[in-house]
Amino acid sequence: MIIVMKMGATDKEIGLVVSRVEHLGFKAHLSKGEEVTIIGLIGDKRKIEPHVLEMMDGVDKLVHILKPFKLASRDFKPENTVIPLNGTRIGGREVTIMAGPCAVEGLQPMLDVAWAIKEAGVHILRGGAYKPRSSPYSFQGLGEEGLEILAQVREQTGLAVITEVVAPEQVPLVARYADILQIGTRNMQNYALLHAAGESGKPVLLKRGMMSTVEELLMSAEYILSHENYRLMLCERGIRTFETATRNTLDINAIPVLKEMTHLPVIVDPSHGTGRWQLVPAVARAAVAAGADGLLIEVHPDPENALSDGPQSLKPARFVQLIEQLKRVAEAVDRSVQ
Amino acid sequence: MIIVMKMGATDKEIGLVVSRVEHLGFKAHLSKGEEVTIIGLIGDKRKIEPHVLEMMDGVDKLVHILKPFKLASRDFKPENTVIPLNGTRIGGREVTIMAGPCAVEGLQPMLDVAWAIKEAGVHILRGGAYKPRSSPYSFQGLGEEGLEILAQVREQTGLAVITEVVAPEQVPLVARYADILQIGTRNMQNYALLHAAGESGKPVLLKRGMMSTVEELLMSAEYILSHENYRLMLCERGIRTFETATRNTLDINAIPVLKEMTHLPVIVDPSHGTGRWQLVPAVARAAVAAGADGLLIEVHPDPENALSDGPQSLKPARFVQLIEQLKRVAEAVDRSVQ
Amino acid sequence: MIIVMKMGATDKEIGLVVSRVEHLGFKAHLSKGEEVTIIGLIGDKRKIEPHVLEMMDGVDKLVHILKPFKLASRDFKPENTVIPLNGTRIGGREVTIMAGPCAVEGLQPMLDVAWAIKEAGVHILRGGAYKPRSSPYSFQGLGEEGLEILAQVREQTGLAVITEVVAPEQVPLVARYADILQIGTRNMQNYALLHAAGESGKPVLLKRGMMSTVEELLMSAEYILSHENYRLMLCERGIRTFETATRNTLDINAIPVLKEMTHLPVIVDPSHGTGRWQLVPAVARAAVAAGADGLLIEVHPDPENALSDGPQSLKPARFVQLIEQLKRVAEAVDRSVQ
Amino acid sequence: MIIVMKMGATDKEIGLVVSRVEHLGFKAHLSKGEEVTIIGLIGDKRKIEPHVLEMMDGVDKLVHILKPFKLASRDFKPENTVIPLNGTRIGGREVTIMAGPCAVEGLQPMLDVAWAIKEAGVHILRGGAYKPRSSPYSFQGLGEEGLEILAQVREQTGLAVITEVVAPEQVPLVARYADILQIGTRNMQNYALLHAAGESGKPVLLKRGMMSTVEELLMSAEYILSHENYRLMLCERGIRTFETATRNTLDINAIPVLKEMTHLPVIVDPSHGTGRWQLVPAVARAAVAAGADGLLIEVHPDPENALSDGPQSLKPARFVQLIEQLKRVAEAVDRSVQ
Repeated sequence: MIIVMKMGATDKEIGLVVSRVEHLGFKAHLSKGEEVTIIGLIGDKRKIEPHVLEMMDGVDKLVHILKPFKLASRDFKPENTVIPLNGTRIGGREVTIMAGPCAVEGLQPMLDVAWAIKEAGVHILRGGAYKPRSSPYSFQGLGEEGLEILAQVREQTGLAVITEVVAPEQVPLVARYADILQIGTRNMQNYALLHAAGESGKPVLLKRGMMSTVEELLMSAEYILSHENYRLMLCERGIRTFETATRNTLDINAIPVLKEMTHLPVIVDPSHGTGRWQLVPAVARAAVAAGADGLLIEVHPDPENALSDGPQSLKPARFVQLIEQLKRVAEAVDRSVQ
Repeated sequence: MIIVMKMGATDKEIGLVVSRVEHLGFKAHLSKGEEVTIIGLIGDKRKIEPHVLEMMDGVDKLVHILKPFKLASRDFKPENTVIPLNGTRIGGREVTIMAGPCAVEGLQPMLDVAWAIKEAGVHILRGGAYKPRSSPYSFQGLGEEGLEILAQVREQTGLAVITEVVAPEQVPLVARYADILQIGTRNMQNYALLHAAGESGKPVLLKRGMMSTVEELLMSAEYILSHENYRLMLCERGIRTFETATRNTLDINAIPVLKEMTHLPVIVDPSHGTGRWQLVPAVARAAVAAGADGLLIEVHPDPENALSDGPQSLKPARFVQLIEQLKRVAEAVDRSVQ
Repeated sequence: MIIVMKMGATDKEIGLVVSRVEHLGFKAHLSKGEEVTIIGLIGDKRKIEPHVLEMMDGVDKLVHILKPFKLASRDFKPENTVIPLNGTRIGGREVTIMAGPCAVEGLQPMLDVAWAIKEAGVHILRGGAYKPRSSPYSFQGLGEEGLEILAQVREQTGLAVITEVVAPEQVPLVARYADILQIGTRNMQNYALLHAAGESGKPVLLKRGMMSTVEELLMSAEYILSHENYRLMLCERGIRTFETATRNTLDINAIPVLKEMTHLPVIVDPSHGTGRWQLVPAVARAAVAAGADGLLIEVHPDPENALSDGPQSLKPARFVQLIEQLKRVAEAVDRSVQ
Repeated sequence: MIIVMKMGATDKEIGLVVSRVEHLGFKAHLSKGEEVTIIGLIGDKRKIEPHVLEMMDGVDKLVHILKPFKLASRDFKPENTVIPLNGTRIGGREVTIMAGPCAVEGLQPMLDVAWAIKEAGVHILRGGAYKPRSSPYSFQGLGEEGLEILAQVREQTGLAVITEVVAPEQVPLVARYADILQIGTRNMQNYALLHAAGESGKPVLLKRGMMSTVEELLMSAEYILSHENYRLMLCERGIRTFETATRNTLDINAIPVLKEMTHLPVIVDPSHGTGRWQLVPAVARAAVAAGADGLLIEVHPDPENALSDGPQSLKPARFVQLIEQLKRVAEAVDRSVQ
């Protein structure tokens, strides 16, 4: 950390800051410029609450040098994290596709989608039993009945299952049914939930908050990793901006940025990232071309009658077409789609 | 709801949409313009998932006419909601001040602040026992010990207490100690928590998500109100924008907008809304001038050593000065500060 | 246009709105719902200022049905606009690459880059003679001397030239030297400049404002098209969001959205869209995979000593590598890079 | 400026950076921490393009210590700038009100508003002759005829006149008619226009770009000040955010932030800042309570028939009421409204 003093800070103010720095167990390193003085702190700065220094007289601002996350950082673990699951290796050379409806609506429709995506080569089925909805008057998911359906479909098709968990006390229940726990965008900073998911030991897919920076996503990852649960994937699913032509703005830059900052696999959700099925193929191709390790795509046999997110769901036939396109793009960047 | 057909939609497509509308139990009202046809739905549109229609061939878009919230709306309840509490009437003519440190750190500092604000005429003490922090390495609050401290301070000073609750299973515990349950910005769409707070029957202060619209805030309010818990306040605490000169951008417009849309009291948090104590007095005065029903202000006896949010906390002496300023501004808009 | 009346609007208020609508030359089409009444306007609504109706008593809001742009719309011209230029066809099957330094700094460096990109198969050279800089203390471009250099490089290499114009009175001068006039992000709503560029008859590349919606971009395009200058390209170059990890957030969704809304070619600038050369290759590949018609890429022989935008410029050798990658991605989506 | 080296930067890399720093004429000040090395530059850093250093091997990032603006800074000129004009002193103890219609539409309506606001005690009349409009199909202003009308109204009423200028070549013409040149939000970074306004020597009101930070506003101010034109006011008029309930989000925080950073007067435009006349009084009061030096308010005798911005214009009678409210709020913060 560096402390920047105000222009005109007095020697006495500077002296008091240096004393405090040393009192806190750091070495202070003074550098007097022509206009301002700066003080470097030497020692592990993660331990202190920075405003202890920020609020002293004569201090202009603090500048953080070290990143606030550690376990998620590539500095800490340079090689890619790879998560083997149901015959795929998430974070490896293959681009992993996870597909299925937004919500579990019943056994038969779930089976229909499951067999369709399995035939297209997909290994992981998505479907929500608990749905966070902005209106209390919307369909909220089938709950445990939905989990049972997922279990049956898994047994019959051999697909692995990813499903969302929305409250900490639900984690043990959902963990019994799911292969991957999904934490949704509204819960990225639900710390009680992050702790519970970390403790579960299950693979976790953590979605970026629609209002959260990449750095905050990595801080939330840190909560899960701090429970020594390293089977963690991050998911870019679009952020909120001033643009209203699409439901969200998919942050394509975040893909190479995350691959640079962290060793964790980066999954992209083009369905929520755009909000309209017509845009999903173009953005899914873009995500693979930019280096995504996987895609989370909404597929529904009858989107017009879906209980949620119909407009962003692909029909199975279009999904199969998209997989063919993705195979070609993956090859062009020296990867493959299973 | 209105369905706008595409330019060039065929009569057959229009006919199918009309059939579907009628099948869903609505009356369809057709209007052929020079370029496009529109179809109005007559009936209560809150019941259907709109994409059932949105995805039909020939449909361009759906336009919502009715607001998606009801119980929170001024159309539903025209007169202001007033919540009597510890001698104040939140939402009444008086502007209610709630003040105290970000986090409960110990009994003595809490008592010091409590007596100081009580002397300034304040009736409600704030202080967090559970702190949602973006880093797992930061101070997370004293937990139940913090609640005990709040209870002692309440007993000794006669102040009412507002404190944050961060997980649904904590609600019964926190509700035993608190006079008002606070739901923080990161939890505005934590629906399990909203349900639990609604069920508790306790007064609730619901903070706006830092990237949530005013309409979404009202939808979240709807979750709490749907449990017939009407002792609810809304809180504007700054939103996230591209501007980095301040921690958040306090949305001053939201005050008159909310007063127009809803009957619920509107509280403003200038401490989080700005992130720097130097800016708090100006923005607190602005909030009162714009019609806020109350303020939530961070006060700490020794901000430099606060365990969280020091830079945005006022010292007691400055807070007392601010109260004097607020009294004058409140009078200028025909209100009062106790 | 549709007028939505307030709940509880009186018959008299409705009657007055209908009269006004008819007085303005439209047919009014009344539809009484259970809670609200709506009034459709039949006739060409582009001619009126909508608030003439919006402000009448009893009116809740106006809903626009028609898009506010016309000449730029795919409804108006369904087939893609293709602009033949120097042996390429911008908007055709080929993905057009435009490359070069941010600013023209001298004849020799410009020639070095020009020959390098020409060898890689590029047909169009970029380089700014007039640079809009946020600080008056930064390098502002060589001005006319820079244009002369571009002319010499064009003559020697046979490359076409794209360069920025920043003021309306400069347009005739710049148009003498340039093959394509570039209008930068800060000037997207500089209407005097849009008119001048439209009148010039030269091909124009219009960059999206960093905080402008896709619809506003199309409205600005309309200014240029209204001068019957149809050789117009649009350029997505990143928008401003709350994310600070990158200079801008490239809006990848905008590519398929624009291809759907307009017939104009869509160019993407991954250099400004990310702000760091390390991220340019991933995002350039993504843009091609998403359907971009061209790319605008900053290349500099010695980025460390570039007079502007060094950190986002590729060295020629890396650029050549990138072109090889782009060829593969373009093929995967049935297009080609020259 | 401070250079932060990467973790693991080699001694050779550090040595090369130090050499470059010294070669550029600075003194390098090395500080080796436990994890990273930082290098301070001593000397005037405004002169170099920072990426000369940023792109060297082993460099992680550059941290700017000094603010990029100088003439606009309170460090440079601690006392408030006060601009005497037509009997008021903008930036002094009085809060200056500027009012009038968005656009000049004709002599008689202009006179009507002018006399009404003069009677309310206002000294400065606003009205646009050149209107930047997002659609080429909207009313674009009366041009020079509008300026003539303003001149006549000024002569008859004795009011000073503020009007917008949209292109550099117009500045001399507009400067002949106007007492204050207004630069609009879309032109905040139209540098040719800033230079022309600076050179004119006339008082200038510079509106913040709807997408610009406070720091960028001050950088644009620097362009005008660099022509030794110090009669400059800044204007907060709302920024663009994700919130759609209002036209813009008025950044109330910007008032105390600007008063801290700069000596220039800060004017607030609650009409554009909200977009609806119903919200203008609350936000205008808030601005005064927060310390604004003046307000720019749209007033129109017949807003329903205004040629632009009707929905955000107050009728004269409401404006008079608002002035009475503002007088009371101004008094409460020890200021006055004339």
